[in-house]
Amino acid sequence: MAKNIKARSVDYAQWYLDVIKAAQLADYSPVRGCMVIRPEGYAIWEAIQRDLDRRFKETGHVNAYFPLLIPQSFLTKEAEHVEGFAMECAVVTHSKLEKDPNNPAVLRPASPLEEPLIIRPTSETMIGHMYAQWVQSYRDLPILINQWANVMRWEMRTRLFLRTSEFLWQEGHTAHETADEAQAETMQMLDVYADFAEQALAIPVIKGRKTDAEKFPGADTTYCIEALMQDGKALQAGTSHNLGQNFSKAFEIKYLGRDNTQQFAHTTSWGVSTRLIGAMIMAHSDDDGLVLPPRVASVVLVIIPVFKSEEERATVMAFIDKIVAALVGEKEASATLRTSGDMQSYFFDKITHQRVIVDTRDVRPGDKQYHWEQRGVPFRIEVGPRDVAGGVGLVKRRLDRSKENVQLDQFSPDWLRGKLEDVHTQMLEKARLFLSDSTRTAETYDQMKEILEKHGGFVRCWFEPNRDSEAKIKTETKATVRCIPFDQPGGEGKCIFTGQPTRTQVLFAESY
Amino acid sequence: MAKNIKARSVDYAQWYLDVIKAAQLADYSPVRGCMVIRPEGYAIWEAIQRDLDRRFKETGHVNAYFPLLIPQSFLTKEAEHVEGFAMECAVVTHSKLEKDPNNPAVLRPASPLEEPLIIRPTSETMIGHMYAQWVQSYRDLPILINQWANVMRWEMRTRLFLRTSEFLWQEGHTAHETADEAQAETMQMLDVYADFAEQALAIPVIKGRKTDAEKFPGADTTYCIEALMQDGKALQAGTSHNLGQNFSKAFEIKYLGRDNTQQFAHTTSWGVSTRLIGAMIMAHSDDDGLVLPPRVASVVLVIIPVFKSEEERATVMAFIDKIVAALVGEKEASATLRTSGDMQSYFFDKITHQRVIVDTRDVRPGDKQYHWEQRGVPFRIEVGPRDVAGGVGLVKRRLDRSKENVQLDQFSPDWLRGKLEDVHTQMLEKARLFLSDSTRTAETYDQMKEILEKHGGFVRCWFEPNRDSEAKIKTETKATVRCIPFDQPGGEGKCIFTGQPTRTQVLFAESY
Repeated sequence: MAKNIKARSVDYAQWYLDVIKAAQLADYSPVRGCMVIRPEGYAIWEAIQRDLDRRFKETGHVNAYFPLLIPQSFLTKEAEHVEGFAMECAVVTHSKLEKDPNNPAVLRPASPLEEPLIIRPTSETMIGHMYAQWVQSYRDLPILINQWANVMRWEMRTRLFLRTSEFLWQEGHTAHETADEAQAETMQMLDVYADFAEQALAIPVIKGRKTDAEKFPGADTTYCIEALMQDGKALQAGTSHNLGQNFSKAFEIKYLGRDNTQQFAHTTSWGVSTRLIGAMIMAHSDDDGLVLPPRVASVVLVIIPVFKSEEERATVMAFIDKIVAALVGEKEASATLRTSGDMQSYFFDKITHQRVIVDTRDVRPGDKQYHWEQRGVPFRIEVGPRDVAGGVGLVKRRLDRSKENVQLDQFSPDWLRGKLEDVHTQMLEKARLFLSDSTRTAETYDQMKEILEKHGGFVRCWFEPNRDSEAKIKTETKATVRCIPFDQPGGEGKCIFTGQPTRTQVLFAESY
Repeated sequence: MAKNIKARSVDYAQWYLDVIKAAQLADYSPVRGCMVIRPEGYAIWEAIQRDLDRRFKETGHVNAYFPLLIPQSFLTKEAEHVEGFAMECAVVTHSKLEKDPNNPAVLRPASPLEEPLIIRPTSETMIGHMYAQWVQSYRDLPILINQWANVMRWEMRTRLFLRTSEFLWQEGHTAHETADEAQAETMQMLDVYADFAEQALAIPVIKGRKTDAEKFPGADTTYCIEALMQDGKALQAGTSHNLGQNFSKAFEIKYLGRDNTQQFAHTTSWGVSTRLIGAMIMAHSDDDGLVLPPRVASVVLVIIPVFKSEEERATVMAFIDKIVAALVGEKEASATLRTSGDMQSYFFDKITHQRVIVDTRDVRPGDKQYHWEQRGVPFRIEVGPRDVAGGVGLVKRRLDRSKENVQLDQFSPDWLRGKLEDVHTQMLEKARLFLSDSTRTAETYDQMKEILEKHGGFVRCWFEPNRDSEAKIKTETKATVRCIPFDQPGGEGKCIFTGQPTRTQVLFAESY
């Protein structure tokens, strides 16, 4: 077991931070609650962006960019929205720094602004203001815009990727002629997220609706995808909001309808964030470190040479050159990319920029194995003089540590692609099994408490959503209604909390 | 001539804004000096990002993300840097808003921060701080990181894309073992920028070095690419800085060298921004609106049906379906993308998401021509009943308004690709010719003043760089040394300002 990584069973929270540190995914920054996303972590975000952006465009969306700063008065225009966000805003009050006359080495804020500005915690208000100017007629609808951006919510208790003051995300904002269209859009994007989570990150999710207590401040209805982490806590992985006419009324997004009357548009918003990287880590990684879902891995395979003499080195490296050429093609194999620490790096895929690396550093082979294992690279190939003699490479799979000898003539781009797909499928299967094994049914509140205490995970039960009941349950169990799953049995049951009849089943869980 | 666009000869500054408005590239926002980049404008930025990002990765760089907010004390650590940036910073002083007790409808800043934070104007300081922690040994070098981000410099006089308080950019930050490596990196990235400007934006540029008066605050040397706009003003399109050991000393980026002694790293930084979109507009557009370089056009071709009866409509649309299938392939032609305003939109390229549109809106054909002309779409095809009878489409080229009848069986993805490449080549040639025609030589200061007054453009002359001389010349002529071009004749000449001998030729111009 890795010495620099705590076991999950010993300290799950520390394990999570240790995995991030060992894989060099992110660091805390000198600014409280803000993180630095290091190259290995950012590459995962780039893969997420590439995949999601394609899905957004295939569903007719376009990207745009709205200002970082929002006049503080905008927040007050939607009543629930201001309550939801005013308490955690970074506020810009000055537009320059000047030297303190008493101590020129020290700077102080100068040129106060007439109206303070806040750094966007989300952009419904700014975008609502702009849409009001862009929309005149039903012909201007729908507007189907997405924004990739940084946002800021001043958090007291932060955790890398899961909850940081600044984070990266995408926020879709659409405006429609009818309520039906807005609802269809809201559901479509939830489906996009669910499919993406499974296909890109190998994370199975449950689709459902939030209770009023848990919905987005300003939404009519919030839908979500919920994932389950290995410690039995749920994680909200994406949300899609039907905003009804709340923001169009607050910001006057009006259009001349087909019937020649002025109408308010129906709007939606939907988002996922760098939080998904946290979800991915906690869904798949193990006590030896990160396990990367292959479709978001920036390095898909590392070759580790093993030799004792200069003569052996020459033989081994010549054989490795052949493996590289077989895996990435002659052309790419002839172009080593620059990288720190004397490694040889090659593009395996020129579109995704996924790479194959030959670890030629002056480091012991065992340390190299350890290094790449902690970084979650899906495959490693070890090549020593005996392998060269046998014409094989020893292929090791990160997911389950399985090993196989593969003949040189078997290596090809398609071979590697197939292997990576197998890993994706098996990671998704494994996570699906965990999700279904960790979803239990309770008939009574006591049963629910017992399940939460003993196993964690999701508890499915009859429950009539209600702010008061939910608040009491949270205080007593730490669990909240994660969602009202779409998948309902129908009929009626007894609410576990009030004993009254209800038509609704919900999923309770502790959550991140 | 377009009524909503001023002619260049009448009011160049207004023409620029009119082109942006007509093509819906950007809007001013309710926050002073900040812009909204609308979908048509942002698509250009996405094309720029895609192309540059590929070039960065092919030269061994990786992306990462550093915090938006920087402690104000960081700015003071590098002496020139603080002078350069402190005067134009957005300053965050509070971490929440609260309701004014006297007027609960009004919010006011609360929870003052211990140390004010600034929104990054550039990230050398934050990144220097982090590199100091990441670098221990020469084995950790080079670090080759790029960041795509928003930055903020509080500007008094703003102009869409060219100078806004918030803008989008990329900033590369590298750290190296030796001064030679850092210099090689600096020059490599300048070459990347120059090649990119020509190959993606069809903008020819001049490579050179900045004088001390014009260099980046904190750099040893700043290199730049300079482009020439149609009004004869120069525009700095990208910069690459050799920062020497200035930031590594200020932030203690130290490493244990091969000789076992502690060394300071040598660092570089380099960036281009959404300013490039302004450069692209001003380099190519005309009095009828935007002219898009094909490689960054999101819509590459629009088909406009012309008909008078329902019967004609059916005939024309059936023929257009065949053209679409020929241009984008049967598979893509069967999948219309959602879009506002009842148009049919298809992917021409699934990687770049470039599209072909059939403009089926209920609008007069003449208005559609006008609409797409102002938006700079490289090609339009008009199809009426007579074209259907002849089995042709009338292809119109935005660049020069040339027209040609093209037979249905000629249309193919390769046909369109070839046509787009022709346009790129001709735009670049045209811009090159303009650049060389607009570069004149002056032997004396009077000659220079005469050229600047009469023609604008670049003035090449012998000149000994000197802060005082440059300040005086700027006051008298508005012109500055744009760069000391790499292309020097050698030998010696008489400085146009002092009359003293100098070995340096420079390019003067008025600039954006």
